Amino acid sequence: MVLLVHSNLLPQCRKIRVLMAEKKMLFVLKEENPWALSKDILKINPAGELPIFIFDGNILAGNYAITEFLEETYSQNKLIVGNNKERAEVRRLTDWFDNKFNREVYQYIAGEKIYKRFVLKLPPESRRIKAGINNLRFHMEYIDWLTERSNYLAGAEFSMADISAAAQISIIDYLGDIPWEDYKNAKLWYSKIKSRPSFKEILNDRIKGVYPSKHYTDLDF
Amino acid sequence: MVLLVHSNLLPQCRKIRVLMAEKKMLFVLKEENPWALSKDILKINPAGELPIFIFDGNILAGNYAITEFLEETYSQNKLIVGNNKERAEVRRLTDWFDNKFNREVYQYIAGEKIYKRFVLKLPPESRRIKAGINNLRFHMEYIDWLTERSNYLAGAEFSMADISAAAQISIIDYLGDIPWEDYKNAKLWYSKIKSRPSFKEILNDRIKGVYPSKHYTDLDF
Repeated sequence: MVLLVHSNLLPQCRKIRVLMAEKKMLFVLKEENPWALSKDILKINPAGELPIFIFDGNILAGNYAITEFLEETYSQNKLIVGNNKERAEVRRLTDWFDNKFNREVYQYIAGEKIYKRFVLKLPPESRRIKAGINNLRFHMEYIDWLTERSNYLAGAEFSMADISAAAQISIIDYLGDIPWEDYKNAKLWYSKIKSRPSFKEILNDRIKGVYPSKHYTDLDF
Repeated sequence: MVLLVHSNLLPQCRKIRVLMAEKKMLFVLKEENPWALSKDILKINPAGELPIFIFDGNILAGNYAITEFLEETYSQNKLIVGNNKERAEVRRLTDWFDNKFNREVYQYIAGEKIYKRFVLKLPPESRRIKAGINNLRFHMEYIDWLTERSNYLAGAEFSMADISAAAQISIIDYLGDIPWEDYKNAKLWYSKIKSRPSFKEILNDRIKGVYPSKHYTDLDF
């Protein structure tokens, strides 16, 4: 059996779910509160982080290790595509969204609207939300620029870069903070991603206590 | 020609230098100020981050993309070693040091002692340095625990995990903040890493305006 311990509030968990769905793997999900992990989970991943991938008694932890392991082991539907140089481009952009976008956008916006509100029980700080939305503009411009040139972020083919980007964006879009009207190419790209069967489950997720933005599940928005 | 645009203040650049030296690659280094990148550099890497790897007119940016590219392309002296599961363990630990250690230790300690002091020209905040040193204890205990069980972090063989960890630690050690006497196994492990020819150049680096700790270059400390 394949089990993924995850939280739907974390983009890195959404990323692995979409990756596994793209590879047509069968798996069971176990939802954890990322800010209050159970002792069992801390024992199997001392980093105290999600996602954790469990199969046949083996435990793999962390988004980077799981991604590359799945790519090496489940060779159907490769997501790190192309020759070595093209693969480096896929990984450059994957890293961009997993880390740079996460740090500059997700940590600010979701940090305030979800973590601050539901975990710390404090009112969100609008100054920090605004900083995140400001940073978001730079990232949206970059996505728009890339998708004006190609069908997908790393080139003509759908890849891990698209999954990583969409995993981050889906949460910000749930919260209603993406100014889609200013980014036509990015919007078209995201509507293609949303139409993929692998993305369906993500769109069905609901964050307790927060309604999704009106267009969140619309494939044509 | 192979060129690496780097800064010796950034652990992710030290990591790639050691990786290239382990692979016995010949390369030229170009030092950049990571907090005031030149326009040319921003043009070739819109993320505005180092390191950048340039060869035959090709440009690869970012630590993750460069690491995997070098591992795929320069196949002598593999650093992501073993079968798929062992490789996942190497990558889990690589990720741990590249990201978790960096966020919880480097950003606090080097952030205050180097960035705050030399870039912002402000006095370092001792509260933040203390937080970093507190976090460092947890990481040192983990390294000590791992190296009590095996020769190297991810098992019997030297790997990318050791390079990533040593790249982070070398800067904190330069600043004199590692309490080695409390971590005998970790100390023995780090003295093995320091003895490797690939690490020699790192130990010769000097940070302008900051003297290294007394034992910084000692192989037996």
